[in-house]
Amino acid sequence: MTIDTTEIRAAVARGEKGLPVEGAGKGASLIRDEVSLPAMVLRERALEHNIHWMQRFVDDRGLALAPHGKTTMTPALFRRQTAAGAWGITLATAAQCRAAYEAGVRRLLMANELVGAGNMAIVSSLLEDPEVTYHCTVDSADNARALGEFFAARGQCVEVLIELGVPGGRCGCRSRAEVMALAEVIAAQPGIAVAGIEGYEGVIHGDDMADRVRAYGDELVAITRALADADLIAVERPVVTASGSAWYDVIAEAFGAADARERFLPLLRPGCYVAHDHGLYKRAQSEILERLHGDPEDGLLPAMEVWAHIQSVPEPGRAVAGLGKRDIAYDADLPMPLRRYRPGMDDAPLPVADWAVTGIMDQHAFLQVPVGEDVRVGDIVAFGSSHPCLTFDKWRHICLMNDAFEAVEILTTRF
Amino acid sequence: MTIDTTEIRAAVARGEKGLPVEGAGKGASLIRDEVSLPAMVLRERALEHNIHWMQRFVDDRGLALAPHGKTTMTPALFRRQTAAGAWGITLATAAQCRAAYEAGVRRLLMANELVGAGNMAIVSSLLEDPEVTYHCTVDSADNARALGEFFAARGQCVEVLIELGVPGGRCGCRSRAEVMALAEVIAAQPGIAVAGIEGYEGVIHGDDMADRVRAYGDELVAITRALADADLIAVERPVVTASGSAWYDVIAEAFGAADARERFLPLLRPGCYVAHDHGLYKRAQSEILERLHGDPEDGLLPAMEVWAHIQSVPEPGRAVAGLGKRDIAYDADLPMPLRRYRPGMDDAPLPVADWAVTGIMDQHAFLQVPVGEDVRVGDIVAFGSSHPCLTFDKWRHICLMNDAFEAVEILTTRF
Repeated sequence: MTIDTTEIRAAVARGEKGLPVEGAGKGASLIRDEVSLPAMVLRERALEHNIHWMQRFVDDRGLALAPHGKTTMTPALFRRQTAAGAWGITLATAAQCRAAYEAGVRRLLMANELVGAGNMAIVSSLLEDPEVTYHCTVDSADNARALGEFFAARGQCVEVLIELGVPGGRCGCRSRAEVMALAEVIAAQPGIAVAGIEGYEGVIHGDDMADRVRAYGDELVAITRALADADLIAVERPVVTASGSAWYDVIAEAFGAADARERFLPLLRPGCYVAHDHGLYKRAQSEILERLHGDPEDGLLPAMEVWAHIQSVPEPGRAVAGLGKRDIAYDADLPMPLRRYRPGMDDAPLPVADWAVTGIMDQHAFLQVPVGEDVRVGDIVAFGSSHPCLTFDKWRHICLMNDAFEAVEILTTRF
Repeated sequence: MTIDTTEIRAAVARGEKGLPVEGAGKGASLIRDEVSLPAMVLRERALEHNIHWMQRFVDDRGLALAPHGKTTMTPALFRRQTAAGAWGITLATAAQCRAAYEAGVRRLLMANELVGAGNMAIVSSLLEDPEVTYHCTVDSADNARALGEFFAARGQCVEVLIELGVPGGRCGCRSRAEVMALAEVIAAQPGIAVAGIEGYEGVIHGDDMADRVRAYGDELVAITRALADADLIAVERPVVTASGSAWYDVIAEAFGAADARERFLPLLRPGCYVAHDHGLYKRAQSEILERLHGDPEDGLLPAMEVWAHIQSVPEPGRAVAGLGKRDIAYDADLPMPLRRYRPGMDDAPLPVADWAVTGIMDQHAFLQVPVGEDVRVGDIVAFGSSHPCLTFDKWRHICLMNDAFEAVEILTTRF
């Protein structure tokens, strides 16, 4: 058992939320009120399915996987992902890289700029371990010079990926010419070396998205080729990387070109796939399966839920649940009631047909339920959500749940 | 110094964010990149001002203060608030009560229903300490019976406040008749006793808000009187409580009626006042000062900021900062650039006039800046925000900052 540990007992004593109550260590039941609700739940079978599904998808195409760790920031999941074959883990900040390193990860892809002496110092401490591979992105000569000076002064060299952005997008050089010019600046500096190209297709907008994303993926490969041909890449096997969880199939096609696979290290870095969801990524996945002409019943499974009590039924047709903006993402869609249980009854779920969340506050969600529904204070509702990143970061501990609704492991996050 | 402690060093090693970098313990400078950004900052002078300002406001009116702790969930702030004279701390969940108890708080006002055996077990463990005063709210006979059975079986008695809600609102009885009927149900039960009345004016909507809130506050007092006259309150000094940080002046007027002050324990429970903000509560406070005919320059001061680097200036007039939905509230207003510093320069801030955040993603914020502005990658921007609750819960550690921009203490949160 990995529940009744000193660490978890200390967290319970500190008043951290969503944990089994004292004495309920072994297989604490979510449907029998042995866990303090609200609680974040990951369904173990769906989670394992997703980890292997995505690894197989990437393996089948001769690419490599660096799952974005910022989604979950959960060391136990990083370990499951690397055990299943992931090349390394992607992170968004220096502190996140430190957390992944502490979890045993040694290949750290920081798909973001590294800025500020404080953050550079964190990375410098990681580079002291000769087993560490670390890359960050760079998109400006100012940042390249700051990095070069900082790491040269410590007798270290930081390997960077030049970021290619899109006009009107987020970070990144806006053209191939800018990328080539920045590579020249970096080549002239000690303490910093170009290791490849990075992009993020998630900020592309407009019609004909699949075509735009494909063209962007092709351009990432073409620029990597141009940099390598101009002898502006300092490593033997240049990295080319892109892809969140909504367009990985299209990026995989671009990166799957034979010369890209042989000459470069093509890294996909979806993050949300591991938990999947009932909203944003469910919709994206169904479009992916359509593009892949795959079985719509195949694919990823929603693994993430947040469980909460009905705490009030103040008016006919209206109920209030004990979960709020503190507990679940609300930026893409409101939480979705999935199933309902009544402690003391058997395990068969009660209906939630035509239930809907109509609003959410810090600690409460408003539910519209059919008038006359047998809904009672104390009923337990499993909610689905949209956008995993912003549910994970609301929890320090997550119940990994088996099919019998028992918490079989408590996963600790490192935000 | 309370920075370079074993606990903080362990948090740095775990990769937690917003902390001084190793070796920068003593007065780590926020403007000299001795703290890993993004970081949450509380300005100590403003914080202390707010704590004492609100305590004085409540004292002057003969009322008592139970600041809502769910806003900050920061034990060090609970201690400052009680040291300044707060009667106790308000919380929203059983786990939060446990956290406040661990922080030394012994008067716990849970302004929410207590639902589920798991959560009741947490409260039961707190009640084992004879020094603990605990109240939760109740609005249904089902919940009252569940509480009574649970606590009676343990030989304990839980003191509850009957919640008065408003039609179309959140939890709570919808009328005085419902409150009186529920009090009769409770009186017939062992293991549970009525200790007063609770309400929350923040879910009232419509025109003439001040009049509506005042009428609601008057009704809370009148119902408490009716319950006491009917001998349906089990404690000597019944509690009457309401008030967030937007209407405390109006609730204070209602609770300030002489017989309410003498006969009852009138508890105000604003939470956001302690950090205040640059949006939602700044606007609410200016309305409060207008109602009080007070000096608009008096009142609360914004104490809460989130600091982040400019990490990219990819196009003229556009910059990207390294803070996102993971770091700062975004439900009421987008973050507001307040001041800017450039490490290596003196302490005078650089201009941010006409800067605006135009969008926010998980780890990034988009800034519109005047074309031609001298903005550089590595510049440090202090951002204000709106709605403190949803900024606090994104941080495990907060830098308490003095006027010289040094972190003088690291405050740890307990979400």
